[in-house]
Amino acid sequence: MIDDQDAFGRLLQAYLAGDDGLEIVERDDGFVGVAGRASAYFTPERAWPAHERAALAWARGRVLDIGCGAGRHSLAVQERGLAVVGVDTSPRAIAVCTRRGLREARVLDVARLSPDAGLGVFDTLLLLGANLGLLGSAAGARTLLARLHAVTSARARIIAESRDPAAMSAPAHAAYRAANRRQGRLPGQLRLRIRYQQYVTPWFDYLFIARGELERLLEGTGWRATGYARGEEGAYIALIEKEGVAGSPDRA
Amino acid sequence: MIDDQDAFGRLLQAYLAGDDGLEIVERDDGFVGVAGRASAYFTPERAWPAHERAALAWARGRVLDIGCGAGRHSLAVQERGLAVVGVDTSPRAIAVCTRRGLREARVLDVARLSPDAGLGVFDTLLLLGANLGLLGSAAGARTLLARLHAVTSARARIIAESRDPAAMSAPAHAAYRAANRRQGRLPGQLRLRIRYQQYVTPWFDYLFIARGELERLLEGTGWRATGYARGEEGAYIALIEKEGVAGSPDRA
Repeated sequence: MIDDQDAFGRLLQAYLAGDDGLEIVERDDGFVGVAGRASAYFTPERAWPAHERAALAWARGRVLDIGCGAGRHSLAVQERGLAVVGVDTSPRAIAVCTRRGLREARVLDVARLSPDAGLGVFDTLLLLGANLGLLGSAAGARTLLARLHAVTSARARIIAESRDPAAMSAPAHAAYRAANRRQGRLPGQLRLRIRYQQYVTPWFDYLFIARGELERLLEGTGWRATGYARGEEGAYIALIEKEGVAGSPDRA
Repeated sequence: MIDDQDAFGRLLQAYLAGDDGLEIVERDDGFVGVAGRASAYFTPERAWPAHERAALAWARGRVLDIGCGAGRHSLAVQERGLAVVGVDTSPRAIAVCTRRGLREARVLDVARLSPDAGLGVFDTLLLLGANLGLLGSAAGARTLLARLHAVTSARARIIAESRDPAAMSAPAHAAYRAANRRQGRLPGQLRLRIRYQQYVTPWFDYLFIARGELERLLEGTGWRATGYARGEEGAYIALIEKEGVAGSPDRA
């Protein structure tokens, strides 16, 4: 990522400099919207919604926080005494994490995650803040889930947040989902870029997926959804465990 | 304006339907920002900043509200018992004004304002909510001021709001102003379009101008700035009167 493309990291750095900016998201059909304020990436654990606090309790062992942003989940995990590595494609986001005291933070595209990336083996993978979306598409999901399988221990779990795309009821969203279906895509697959001031990220795929669709997507990947924490407006966090693992008291 | 270009009117109509959306403004250098919430166009007079309330007291006679938006100024003027016509390029904004009870509201581009437009003669022209920006550019301003001269009575006045562009201190704004100066433009001349969801207006010129620049711009136009009401962060409202008019107790 060249520096002018780091719109997301600029947004986070501006917040530290005193400007609580708005994250603008543009979809490839021309739809623009405001994802939220920069400050949302900095909320302390006590201010999180209940389902997010509940889900973080599922973390154990060595943790990888994928798309860690300003590090709010990584820092909460570190605070609990677990070893955590935060990774993000945004160099400026990683600089923010480091400045905030995250001990292990690295610039890394999840598509480059592999046993050769030198990060070691993890017991818990975090895809919070809707980062289950990094699965990108049905095909992308299977590739990425195999990558995640390869960098995790036998007892590993993924804690991943998404949102039922049907909960986004605006007509423009419904039309986009219908177009996706016509093209054989998952309805909640989005092609997006983030804009902040004059900075624009490259286009990327992002996926919102209903729980039933997620469970079908996981079939044959070696991962299985074993529990959910439900949020507002269709949001949920899934506990996804490596198959063949013995039962856990966390299961719903 | 074709309907898909009426991003501004869509924003206003969505507010009436219960969705207080954000108005996204894109500049021709790729800079994007949020101008504000839709609700800002609906604030009742008691909630306006003091300089805006003070400036509206300058209105008298027959009033034309140029770029009337959701009609907040027009409605306040109508409430006072003055005759007022609201005009806007946005058909959906005009529909909102009508729905809110504005008795005379018309779709009209200020560039088409002339004695032939059938609107009659006005004593007060409102260019509030930064609508002095509709002057567009130095050349555009002289053309438009002549148009305004032609549709007004001998005692006419313009009540127009702008903002000193130097008060916008972000580096990206300073760089844009510097580029304007290199091209011989006024520093606060902007080329913008408004985006809301999937709707995008055509590009248009919009001008932020300091008081000294405004006074130079008015020379030889038959208009003269005779008073100011000052707001926050460089904002001000100018009282601009037809030259040759006798002194008014309103003058600052």
